[in-house]
Amino acid sequence: MNPPLRLLVIGGVAAGASCAARARRLDEHASIIMLDRGPDVSFANCGLPYHIGGEIAERGALAVQTPAGLKSLLNLDVRTGCEALRIDRAGKRVEVRQVADGHCEWISYDKLMLAPGASPLRPALPGIDDARVHTLRNLQDMDRILAAAGTARRAVVIGAGFIGIEMAEQLRHRGLAVQLVELQEQVLPQLDAPMSALLASELQRQGVTVMTGERVTAFEPADAVLHCRLASGRVLEADLVILSIGVQPETTLAREAGLALGPRGHILVDEFMRTSDPDIHAAGDAVLTRDRIDGSAVSVPLGGPANRQGRVAADCMLLGDRARPYPGSLGTAIVRAFDVVAGITGWSEKRLLAAGKAHDSITVNAEHHAGYYPGAKPMSLKILWEPDTGRLLGAQATGFEGVDKRLDVLATALAGGMTVDDLCHLELAYAPPFGSAKDIVNLAGFAACNKRDGLVTPAASLPADANVQVLDVRPKALAEAFPVPGGAINIPFPALRASLDRLDPRRPVVTVCAFGKMSYFAARILAQQGFEVRSFAGGMRGNVDPRSPGKMPG
Amino acid sequence: MNPPLRLLVIGGVAAGASCAARARRLDEHASIIMLDRGPDVSFANCGLPYHIGGEIAERGALAVQTPAGLKSLLNLDVRTGCEALRIDRAGKRVEVRQVADGHCEWISYDKLMLAPGASPLRPALPGIDDARVHTLRNLQDMDRILAAAGTARRAVVIGAGFIGIEMAEQLRHRGLAVQLVELQEQVLPQLDAPMSALLASELQRQGVTVMTGERVTAFEPADAVLHCRLASGRVLEADLVILSIGVQPETTLAREAGLALGPRGHILVDEFMRTSDPDIHAAGDAVLTRDRIDGSAVSVPLGGPANRQGRVAADCMLLGDRARPYPGSLGTAIVRAFDVVAGITGWSEKRLLAAGKAHDSITVNAEHHAGYYPGAKPMSLKILWEPDTGRLLGAQATGFEGVDKRLDVLATALAGGMTVDDLCHLELAYAPPFGSAKDIVNLAGFAACNKRDGLVTPAASLPADANVQVLDVRPKALAEAFPVPGGAINIPFPALRASLDRLDPRRPVVTVCAFGKMSYFAARILAQQGFEVRSFAGGMRGNVDPRSPGKMPG
Ligand SMILES: Cc1cc2nc3c(=O)[nH]c(=O)nc-3n(C[C@H](O)[C@H](O)[C@H](O)COP(=O)(O)OP(=O)(O)OC[C@H]3O[C@@H](n4cnc5c(N)ncnc54)[C@H](O)[C@@H]3O)c2cc1C
Ligand SMILES: Cc1cc2nc3c(=O)[nH]c(=O)nc-3n(C[C@H](O)[C@H](O)[C@H](O)COP(=O)(O)OP(=O)(O)OC[C@H]3O[C@@H](n4cnc5c(N)ncnc54)[C@H](O)[C@@H]3O)c2cc1C
Ligand SMILES: CC(C)(COP(=O)(O)OP(=O)(O)OC[C@H]1O[C@@H](n2cnc3c(N)ncnc32)[C@H](O)[C@@H]1OP(=O)(O)O)[C@@H](O)C(=O)NCCC(=O)NCCS
Ligand SMILES: CC(C)(COP(=O)(O)OP(=O)(O)OC[C@H]1O[C@@H](n2cnc3c(N)ncnc32)[C@H](O)[C@@H]1OP(=O)(O)O)[C@@H](O)C(=O)NCCC(=O)NCCS
Repeated sequence: MNPPLRLLVIGGVAAGASCAARARRLDEHASIIMLDRGPDVSFANCGLPYHIGGEIAERGALAVQTPAGLKSLLNLDVRTGCEALRIDRAGKRVEVRQVADGHCEWISYDKLMLAPGASPLRPALPGIDDARVHTLRNLQDMDRILAAAGTARRAVVIGAGFIGIEMAEQLRHRGLAVQLVELQEQVLPQLDAPMSALLASELQRQGVTVMTGERVTAFEPADAVLHCRLASGRVLEADLVILSIGVQPETTLAREAGLALGPRGHILVDEFMRTSDPDIHAAGDAVLTRDRIDGSAVSVPLGGPANRQGRVAADCMLLGDRARPYPGSLGTAIVRAFDVVAGITGWSEKRLLAAGKAHDSITVNAEHHAGYYPGAKPMSLKILWEPDTGRLLGAQATGFEGVDKRLDVLATALAGGMTVDDLCHLELAYAPPFGSAKDIVNLAGFAACNKRDGLVTPAASLPADANVQVLDVRPKALAEAFPVPGGAINIPFPALRASLDRLDPRRPVVTVCAFGKMSYFAARILAQQGFEVRSFAGGMRGNVDPRSPGKMPG
Repeated sequence: MNPPLRLLVIGGVAAGASCAARARRLDEHASIIMLDRGPDVSFANCGLPYHIGGEIAERGALAVQTPAGLKSLLNLDVRTGCEALRIDRAGKRVEVRQVADGHCEWISYDKLMLAPGASPLRPALPGIDDARVHTLRNLQDMDRILAAAGTARRAVVIGAGFIGIEMAEQLRHRGLAVQLVELQEQVLPQLDAPMSALLASELQRQGVTVMTGERVTAFEPADAVLHCRLASGRVLEADLVILSIGVQPETTLAREAGLALGPRGHILVDEFMRTSDPDIHAAGDAVLTRDRIDGSAVSVPLGGPANRQGRVAADCMLLGDRARPYPGSLGTAIVRAFDVVAGITGWSEKRLLAAGKAHDSITVNAEHHAGYYPGAKPMSLKILWEPDTGRLLGAQATGFEGVDKRLDVLATALAGGMTVDDLCHLELAYAPPFGSAKDIVNLAGFAACNKRDGLVTPAASLPADANVQVLDVRPKALAEAFPVPGGAINIPFPALRASLDRLDPRRPVVTVCAFGKMSYFAARILAQQGFEVRSFAGGMRGNVDPRSPGKMPG
């Protein structure tokens, strides 16, 4: 019988703990040591904002597992407060320092797992070291923010990505005045701008001051308040600052050990999470993985990938040939701000544009379940595909309910390499409380195929050319209440067929409605009457909060 | 220019109206006549139970469209109260009778669309014609039931399929005493029995008397009450009976016209919804379509397929080569009863067994979102796959929230021909309110792969053989409160590794826990210590209402 395998895991949260747990189930006899330099392992980073806001009442709930629990469930030798200092690859050992007393020792391994995660970015701005400027990664950060939030009245959250938005929401829950500052011209810059507009409107409606296109240049203590100076010249007053502008991989160890790294310092791994050293695996926020759409190397610092990559690493170490590869990451992500939800899976349009990849897209609006059943809420779904093949490249959704479901359906379709044609006939569960006979995912498929088939030519924006006739087919009251910028001819849809003489057949037309459906119907009529016509996709109210005026107009 | 196409559509609800609407968008010049013998078209059959129960307050909400609306939106010539009597295929015309005055006329067509739907089964039982015995298909049926429900106190619902369960729920909402009678030994017989147990328990908890394995043999009027006599000898008293035991296709017209029909009278169509007459299309509840899993001919009388098939028919008539085929139906369906939701997509185990198809399956239990975030509810997910390839064959889910989402993900995976391996790495949207880093769909993939890889051998039932040691790894209190039938050795999981001497290594072991996860962990330990071991899949509390006792035990 072979001597038991010695597995050493550095980092004990998502990727590390998942690897150790799976390794134990695969090998009851292995010696499994899991180190973390912090006092905790297996905690729910993703839950930290919700304890700050009070939604997760018990701090203890954030400990998904404790060292004692991992010992009794999985016979793991968990050592907290132990920092790995360096890796001696030739000697297959790691030097470890007790944080408490500085004591150092070497621990040998047969297989080494690196799951050191990432740490929040803290740019070298003047005043950044003020104690009121916080980042949030672990329970200690959370405790500090909680203590500060006890007396703070004004918070400035810098960075309106997923964590920034969650923090803005949760600090509002606690009653703080919240200002949210974002460098880009939109909140949630991971999404295409129109798809994040509803989030911005909701944040504002709930009392968060949203400032986009603004950069922080310095923090200046002034008596009891901290001034956050912006590049625009504005100065914001804060008792508490949350810096949530992204993360960087924790890869000092890997670098010093000479492992192959990516351009921004991430550890390079293959599809079995093997680093350039066959006895060292790595997973989670610290690594570059394969993009599931195009196979390029990407960093996707999210909990799901970290957990599943950790499991793949254990499989590779212990299952040999039976191990299944990690198929890559899509970057599926979601955030809730008060009543609004938004998320993405796969590539955004801006990412496709930046990469110069051919793509096409469509945005459709519809209700999240049958309109005749009470409680139907509007939702917006954008899909992107490869023009040649129709293969899906990405999707974004925003709305109030059922957003997670549509993202998950699209994430599954992306994983399956499915096309826009396939979306037309997804057979999703339909009963009135749950969906529609033609679900918004089907509608997105229809609209994409209509575009591909040339049945309609969508216009992404209103025409600048005065020669183009803008035809607004909304009811008169709506057309007057929310006029088309630049003016339009209003012919309410039901009157259209009898009023074609009001349009000049020699000039092009762009049809406009509230949500992009009636303008499509109108474009079909005009096209078949010989007009050169395009339909303004997404409609006049596609980009704003659809809750006012109350009922979603046709 | 060709003369405009004359399209005649028979049946104006899901398949018919969708065909007519799509046809208009494809051909502005066609003459499109849509007939229905009833007074309504485009109504929401699926919403009928909810108006009876009062959830949909306005009757008018059930009219998704009106003849006038279809005229002004789509320029359709809608004729209600018009029954198609016979088809003269040679002459390409249909004889139509005005229901109001019996007046008949012939209407010619270039293309004919048959969307006559289905009608509720009414077996020839003694007393079936009593006015208190209702079926529910249209607004008139609904009005009659509503009128009767106004004074009724006791309802008997016969048939516990989707509609029967909705009716039981909605009649309880109205305060009636409800008895639900089902021929098979379980409610919702479309599902495998264990997956419908939670529904049965919820119905009972909410005051519905559930009687399974019971057949109605006669209805006997007795003064003010109707006696429903059951084969068991029981007699139920009713003021109102709802018969919801299935539907039969409305295919008299098609039969008399000599179109090819299936064994139970459904119209046979190809993947473009063409009948045996190339100028006659058919769609919806009246047809047999291709099963999406194995290509066999199936009847899937549901709203989503009917709508999308109607659209395919229009595409075939008007888009020619560009029309895309209907890829077949999965039979995805869902139902809510009070707080509980259950549904299915693809094949059930009983259907696979009846068809003699090789299959394997696993059931996993987990919470619907991160356990540390408040409100996580237990959920049960069963998946079935083809042993050779791992390709998914079907899935069923039951729980309180997020059931529709998992069904839709699995329906998408089925449509994509995906395997259990693929489920392991679906990258679903995860933030605490929406999911888990390892979603239950991923867990189902893991568990299926573990079974395929021989890491664990699940046991579908507790062993009958006294030689087998039953090992219960639940905490002592739980093991005592809900003992394993037939007895077990209780070694709480944390003590297991140190207590292996309490088991006889020469005798096989079946491990048992609450939900199937810890018994898997235990089975891994024992297997690697040389035991012959199986894990009782789904656990002791997998088949019953997991709300008591409160917290889901490990
Ligand atoms: C506030 C917040 C909210 C989030 N919300 C979501 C969400 O909603 N959805 C989602 O998918 N993801 C979310 N994430 C991201 C998710 O938490 C991370 O992707 C995931 O935790 C990464 O796991 P990991 O194991 O790679 O790294 P980490 O979780 O960062 O763990 C790494 C561990 O390694 C330890 N370590 C590092 N270096 C050493 C060393 N030299 N010696 C010993 N120990 C070391 C660290 O102390 C740390 O505990 C959120 C993150 C945060 C901070
Ligand atoms: C109470 C109830 C609840 C339901 N719930 C759901 C659900 O939650 N989810 C789901 O997916 N499905 C549900 N369904 C099923 C769904 O409604 C049907 O699958 C769908 O309506 C079928 O559409 P169809 O167009 O084929 O037929 P139908 O809707 O039956 O329409 C056929 C029409 O044709 C007319 N017709 C028939 N013969 C003639 C003739 N000779 N001349 C003129 N007209 C004729 C009939 O009057 C009828 O109006 C439910 C059905 C009912 C009754
Ligand atoms: C707590 C932690 C150590 C658990 O790791 P884990 O044991 O691999 O994960 P789970 O508890 O979800 O259990 C999954 C295992 O149980 C099995 N399982 C779960 N439910 C099951 C069921 N009902 N029946 C059979 N098997 C089941 C799975 O197949 C899997 O086993 P496998 O990997 O051997 O196939 C780890 O997830 C962790 O540290 N989490 C917190 C940190 C974190 O993820 N942070 C970022 C997000 S907030
Ligand atoms: C009312 C009814 C006639 C509508 O049929 P319809 O017009 O085909 O369907 P919808 O109203 O959903 O509109 C879908 C069309 O609008 C398009 N569309 C929808 N939203 C859009 C958007 N935001 N942007 C662009 N196009 C959009 C779709 O692509 C589709 O057009 P296409 O088929 O030409 O591609 C029909 O659905 C019906 O009768 N329903 C009630 C009966 C029923 O279904 N009962 C059973 C279930 S309860």
